[in-house]
Amino acid sequence: MKNKPLEEYAELDLDREARCGFPEFIYGEGKTTEQLLGIMRRLHESGKTVLVTRVNPEAVPALLSAFPEAEHDALASTVRIIRPMPKKRGRVCVICAGTSDLPVAREAFLTVESCGYECDLIPDCGIAGLHRLISKLERLRSADVVIAAAGMEGALPSVTAGLLSCPVIAVPTRVGYGASLGGITALLAMLNSCASGVTVVNIDNGFGAACAAIRILSRLPEKE
Amino acid sequence: MKNKPLEEYAELDLDREARCGFPEFIYGEGKTTEQLLGIMRRLHESGKTVLVTRVNPEAVPALLSAFPEAEHDALASTVRIIRPMPKKRGRVCVICAGTSDLPVAREAFLTVESCGYECDLIPDCGIAGLHRLISKLERLRSADVVIAAAGMEGALPSVTAGLLSCPVIAVPTRVGYGASLGGITALLAMLNSCASGVTVVNIDNGFGAACAAIRILSRLPEKE
Amino acid sequence: MKNKPLEEYAELDLDREARCGFPEFIYGEGKTTEQLLGIMRRLHESGKTVLVTRVNPEAVPALLSAFPEAEHDALASTVRIIRPMPKKRGRVCVICAGTSDLPVAREAFLTVESCGYECDLIPDCGIAGLHRLISKLERLRSADVVIAAAGMEGALPSVTAGLLSCPVIAVPTRVGYGASLGGITALLAMLNSCASGVTVVNIDNGFGAACAAIRILSRLPEKE
Amino acid sequence: MKNKPLEEYAELDLDREARCGFPEFIYGEGKTTEQLLGIMRRLHESGKTVLVTRVNPEAVPALLSAFPEAEHDALASTVRIIRPMPKKRGRVCVICAGTSDLPVAREAFLTVESCGYECDLIPDCGIAGLHRLISKLERLRSADVVIAAAGMEGALPSVTAGLLSCPVIAVPTRVGYGASLGGITALLAMLNSCASGVTVVNIDNGFGAACAAIRILSRLPEKE
Amino acid sequence: MKNKPLEEYAELDLDREARCGFPEFIYGEGKTTEQLLGIMRRLHESGKTVLVTRVNPEAVPALLSAFPEAEHDALASTVRIIRPMPKKRGRVCVICAGTSDLPVAREAFLTVESCGYECDLIPDCGIAGLHRLISKLERLRSADVVIAAAGMEGALPSVTAGLLSCPVIAVPTRVGYGASLGGITALLAMLNSCASGVTVVNIDNGFGAACAAIRILSRLPEKE
Amino acid sequence: MKNKPLEEYAELDLDREARCGFPEFIYGEGKTTEQLLGIMRRLHESGKTVLVTRVNPEAVPALLSAFPEAEHDALASTVRIIRPMPKKRGRVCVICAGTSDLPVAREAFLTVESCGYECDLIPDCGIAGLHRLISKLERLRSADVVIAAAGMEGALPSVTAGLLSCPVIAVPTRVGYGASLGGITALLAMLNSCASGVTVVNIDNGFGAACAAIRILSRLPEKE
Amino acid sequence: MKNKPLEEYAELDLDREARCGFPEFIYGEGKTTEQLLGIMRRLHESGKTVLVTRVNPEAVPALLSAFPEAEHDALASTVRIIRPMPKKRGRVCVICAGTSDLPVAREAFLTVESCGYECDLIPDCGIAGLHRLISKLERLRSADVVIAAAGMEGALPSVTAGLLSCPVIAVPTRVGYGASLGGITALLAMLNSCASGVTVVNIDNGFGAACAAIRILSRLPEKE
Amino acid sequence: MKNKPLEEYAELDLDREARCGFPEFIYGEGKTTEQLLGIMRRLHESGKTVLVTRVNPEAVPALLSAFPEAEHDALASTVRIIRPMPKKRGRVCVICAGTSDLPVAREAFLTVESCGYECDLIPDCGIAGLHRLISKLERLRSADVVIAAAGMEGALPSVTAGLLSCPVIAVPTRVGYGASLGGITALLAMLNSCASGVTVVNIDNGFGAACAAIRILSRLPEKE
Repeated sequence: MKNKPLEEYAELDLDREARCGFPEFIYGEGKTTEQLLGIMRRLHESGKTVLVTRVNPEAVPALLSAFPEAEHDALASTVRIIRPMPKKRGRVCVICAGTSDLPVAREAFLTVESCGYECDLIPDCGIAGLHRLISKLERLRSADVVIAAAGMEGALPSVTAGLLSCPVIAVPTRVGYGASLGGITALLAMLNSCASGVTVVNIDNGFGAACAAIRILSRLPEKE
Repeated sequence: MKNKPLEEYAELDLDREARCGFPEFIYGEGKTTEQLLGIMRRLHESGKTVLVTRVNPEAVPALLSAFPEAEHDALASTVRIIRPMPKKRGRVCVICAGTSDLPVAREAFLTVESCGYECDLIPDCGIAGLHRLISKLERLRSADVVIAAAGMEGALPSVTAGLLSCPVIAVPTRVGYGASLGGITALLAMLNSCASGVTVVNIDNGFGAACAAIRILSRLPEKE
Repeated sequence: MKNKPLEEYAELDLDREARCGFPEFIYGEGKTTEQLLGIMRRLHESGKTVLVTRVNPEAVPALLSAFPEAEHDALASTVRIIRPMPKKRGRVCVICAGTSDLPVAREAFLTVESCGYECDLIPDCGIAGLHRLISKLERLRSADVVIAAAGMEGALPSVTAGLLSCPVIAVPTRVGYGASLGGITALLAMLNSCASGVTVVNIDNGFGAACAAIRILSRLPEKE
Repeated sequence: MKNKPLEEYAELDLDREARCGFPEFIYGEGKTTEQLLGIMRRLHESGKTVLVTRVNPEAVPALLSAFPEAEHDALASTVRIIRPMPKKRGRVCVICAGTSDLPVAREAFLTVESCGYECDLIPDCGIAGLHRLISKLERLRSADVVIAAAGMEGALPSVTAGLLSCPVIAVPTRVGYGASLGGITALLAMLNSCASGVTVVNIDNGFGAACAAIRILSRLPEKE
Repeated sequence: MKNKPLEEYAELDLDREARCGFPEFIYGEGKTTEQLLGIMRRLHESGKTVLVTRVNPEAVPALLSAFPEAEHDALASTVRIIRPMPKKRGRVCVICAGTSDLPVAREAFLTVESCGYECDLIPDCGIAGLHRLISKLERLRSADVVIAAAGMEGALPSVTAGLLSCPVIAVPTRVGYGASLGGITALLAMLNSCASGVTVVNIDNGFGAACAAIRILSRLPEKE
Repeated sequence: MKNKPLEEYAELDLDREARCGFPEFIYGEGKTTEQLLGIMRRLHESGKTVLVTRVNPEAVPALLSAFPEAEHDALASTVRIIRPMPKKRGRVCVICAGTSDLPVAREAFLTVESCGYECDLIPDCGIAGLHRLISKLERLRSADVVIAAAGMEGALPSVTAGLLSCPVIAVPTRVGYGASLGGITALLAMLNSCASGVTVVNIDNGFGAACAAIRILSRLPEKE
Repeated sequence: MKNKPLEEYAELDLDREARCGFPEFIYGEGKTTEQLLGIMRRLHESGKTVLVTRVNPEAVPALLSAFPEAEHDALASTVRIIRPMPKKRGRVCVICAGTSDLPVAREAFLTVESCGYECDLIPDCGIAGLHRLISKLERLRSADVVIAAAGMEGALPSVTAGLLSCPVIAVPTRVGYGASLGGITALLAMLNSCASGVTVVNIDNGFGAACAAIRILSRLPEKE
Repeated sequence: MKNKPLEEYAELDLDREARCGFPEFIYGEGKTTEQLLGIMRRLHESGKTVLVTRVNPEAVPALLSAFPEAEHDALASTVRIIRPMPKKRGRVCVICAGTSDLPVAREAFLTVESCGYECDLIPDCGIAGLHRLISKLERLRSADVVIAAAGMEGALPSVTAGLLSCPVIAVPTRVGYGASLGGITALLAMLNSCASGVTVVNIDNGFGAACAAIRILSRLPEKE
């Protein structure tokens, strides 16, 4: 794949921000370092914030050396080059059930933040100790959208949505073993939430949950 | 179960509207006529709009005779007693892929409408004939939330979300046969949407999609 | 199958109470009325409490007419002929998430009660309104074993076990539709409980949960 | 994650022993050495027995060097720092079907023992040679709880429960290949036990089975 | 389909007995009465024993009236017209775990018998009460092939094969509910038998197990 | 396996081209370098084009050194030795949804080309940006067969088939994560296409799609 | 749904024949008699052949009485009103494995025929008696496309494709029981065909296989 | 595990040959070199043929150095120490569909041979080229049992059993990719064989198939 022109492996969608409310970000998985560099260069030239998710750790040094202003987040597996932009109206709160759900939660957090919205991250408030969640109700109530990530039995979004009126986006994670089936159990549980109005994205898809939140926030009137 | 006091089979959550933004509605499946009547009576007395979903057709005559002001929608399998309320700010557009997805789409439509929001329903715009969807883009763009219901390969929400910036809530339906696996195929496909920011609810869950839409609309500033 | 001797279709295990702590009860599903009558007669003659679970409604009149002292519970689908016996030490509390889980919860309740233990049943305390569960904590804490039945996302046992130190037996139910997969989702969720020490029985198996509770209670010292 | 304060990745539940009967133990999978050290230090300072399960072999030297009094069990993948405590009333017997089920069985054994209860471990008594199980009946009958671990067709708990009156907790293991589906087959089989009152935990979850046993033993009167 | 010539819906394999050791029998499911009559007539004319399995109860009166010498077995759902033939060498023993497995066991029994071999049927010897199986060891040891049918956790063939040296053919049945998955659990368990040399046929396929037994017996030297 | 005669591990089907329209190609997965060399040599001697798919990268140097005229395609994981042959009538167009689907698309492309047909490859025209597909309609309409490869929700073949009258062969790929289930989701979606007449091959099976295309083209009259 | 204008439940695609090569046919499942009549009328007025598949038997009398020239095929569950049209070039052969696969095979046969192509139907040539298939090789070799329908292990398309060079379209059917999983087993088997170039459609989808065949035939030069 | 006495990890079943017809063989997977050596030593001392299956390649040198008379088969992953014994009556023929199925086929072959029966192995006779199987019919007909191993669509046992009257034992293999689901597809297909009397063992279980064959052969009268 080396030295191939961009057109042989990708057709960028520079128009996406106008159409969908967020720019084309780069899904790093399965792309070679050369492909990543080629796509980052083109997006960067267009003047947009560049965000690479699921970046292969082995590609990071080359990306950081090509773009010295880029920041790498090892936990979330992202690399980004932020453009200054005015803060937008709307606030997201990302919560997760345990320490192991943090990578997914941080991917969501960084994506929301990269689009200019305020974001808050609360770790380790799983339902086996309800007091941990309940003590954060105030922070949760001040959010316009809550993103709740959990593995195992995936009950955090249900309990949360029963306590709040804002949109709750559930992100199942692959945390757990055996009958967690790589996140399928949490996914199914979230789809069957007894708290009405919970919506769900793919397993470990912190990025997708963030995009859904941005779609929601985009309907809020501009900050005056 | 006849003649039993309400407390032996249900504990109503009259506080839900304050907490979650929509009142407790009645999920009709698996409830006897007596239970339905008991719960409807209590909710009706509390002054709220009453909506029963998935109502057993055999229970309908008894419900209509007990509440002469109630309306029955045979396609959506709902019974409701509407209270006049001020129109709220926000507009939902419900679309569906084929004629057989209409019951699910109408359940969503009636739930949104019952909470005081404006709602629009566009049937039969599946992706096998793209011109049907594209000719409705204007109507879709005027919505604050789009609910897209589809069975079979469930691609309608992906195509729609690629064309719009507002939130798109995907509802898989059990329409299809064989390898549609009772809606599991459409569900999985929607969770894997290549259009970022699509969120998904349970199979045939038009009601849940509507509640998610209402959670979103509740963040919009009041209509002045 | 009519008029066949008992030996051609069943070999009773009259010794089970000595071996396992509870007598052989009769699983009614798939047995003809004649088979049920034959087995009930033999067990009744042996002096034990007779309990038939999952009894076919069409068989009930014949059973009640053959054993006038028998009681039928339509919700739990049981028929039983109780023998007076001394109350034993130990108390079970059965809780369930919604109205539709009641049949399973009652099957558990009646089985425990039939073996001479005290039992308490609390309906409709699902986690979408946590206050319903928390207001019953006192009653729950006084139990030696809690049986928690739930369908949909099956989170009730996790939340409950996080609040209690006694054994919690989880019973998934088939309540829900679409991606609840006939109870498989609740089953998987319960097996992945983030609250340590929850154990699980088969879908809708209120009877099995009760037997597990009885095995536990049998280790308590006799009531003095 | 290095050098981060504990609060950024974990919120310990020091109150768990009072609430649930066993202290918060540390699930090692997916935690970095630094996180493990941070959490172990805090729990150790609180005066409790510290038990890390599923510890990554690469983290072991650092843990042992930081806590010289810690013991490592390579088969069970645990590290623990035991506090002297009075022996409690109650006895557990852990059995397993084959040599390959030993790691799971030992995880259960060490967890029970770490909470101050007596525990016995019997390996390799699978049902293909029934005489192996039957020759241990006496030891089994002296237990208050039996934990039975098995892979493949997972029939050991059924056969065992048919012979005993005490609670039997079944632990499916991933032992087997092909259609054992990583332990799903054993899990399903155990949930369908024809011996009433068997309860089941997640695949390979020796720790969870032990916690369930401890919940049961906690109801026994104190040793006088 | 009425009055259509046999050639439009079936092409009989009259040569099968020579090739495979048993004649073409008629699988009744999904065939109309007319088709059944047409095929039975042709096979009967060819001088063979006729056996229809899974016969629709509604078709039985017409079949019995067309062939007065036919016998109907309601439990096994078979109709057959037996031809006198010399007894062949070899003996099969069919066992089943519970009363509900009897239809499958009898289908196997009748098929073996229809081919001229000796057959024995032992009901209700499930492993929850091992003494029931062990008391029949002598009868089992005298068989050349054992067919073992069971639902639920499907452990009967494993336990049996551990006690015997002859071929053991396992037949999973759909008996059980919830996580028995319509017999899939028993099927998977049997395929994972820890007793070496168990082979398995499809769910409820008593007929197929019998054919496998006949293939085995056909290798025995003729009875002198 | 070294030094073994070809007959001990393979029985070549040199007659396949006459029978099926394409020669026997070599599926490289799971074959040792020695086996590959042995089979390539025999096929090469017979005068045919040799194509090895899914070739292990470690085997490539040995193959290239044994056959200096061979070409290796790293992206498609193929090695081939082309024989000059007359161009045949018929044109295939291979399209794929994203950059990560390219390996599968190229395997299809190279297989078609190796059989003497014209082939065109269009990357990255997924349905999240419909304009990318629609701008290529002319090229698509000039094809006799379209092969459409996609992962995730697998909707590309449906959208494409709705716009064209030629055969559309759908190839699901394993691209995606979590609920994409290694390509099962895309596979199921394609089987449920609402655009009539789409046919499907196995996951990642670019080779199989190409063979299906060749079967179709073989019915076209020879190029004059 | 009665008396509603067509536009409220359907948006016909009268342009489909020009775009895709076959007219819009009517999928009868889930449509009311009124909807069927409404759609048939509109299509009939447009001058096209009308074909309704999966028609509900209860709707048939009303359809036949509204369109006296219509023909009903009870086995295939179709109603059609044929327009005279010139015979087109191209010949399809439909084969099926057993008597029970006939409804699916006939649906394919009638759809092909309705589009003006020649079609041949060969029943009951399953692979348990290979001579039945091999004796039809001549007829098979004269076809431009073969459609092969089979349930159970679904091996018929593999065996057939190994003998032919034309396109082979595999249709799995739900015939079989237990582990046939409603046709999923046959579907999976066909997707894994060891004969290269077999393509597959959805379970029982004779209609879809026919459309795929028509797409293929449409590339053949017109009959001169 | 080092230096532990045999009793802590295994309880040998030296009596198995008397009970089941074949000695206890050693399943190598998941056993350490020390455990293997300990068990081999004990079995060897008892005078039996020792066979280790699925032996870890890294353990092989230690085993061969401890038992210089042992033979290692790299393809089948076995190590064995053969004892001279009289040839027994009975002949098995093992066939497999492709080159990649050879390891499973050889495991079966070596197990049969180790028990003193004659065995024949025919590779690469998959059904995509039927002539390969049919040309071996004579060899197949001379066998008392046929073991047929195949991956992908797993049709080889069906086709074979349709041509033979002896027992046919089907072994699904994990050969294939994507929708072969690691051998599940072949397994399901074999269980649904349309050729009556095929029995099935677990995926890749050549050893189990051999044990089943030995159970069958053990019923044949001794060789005179």
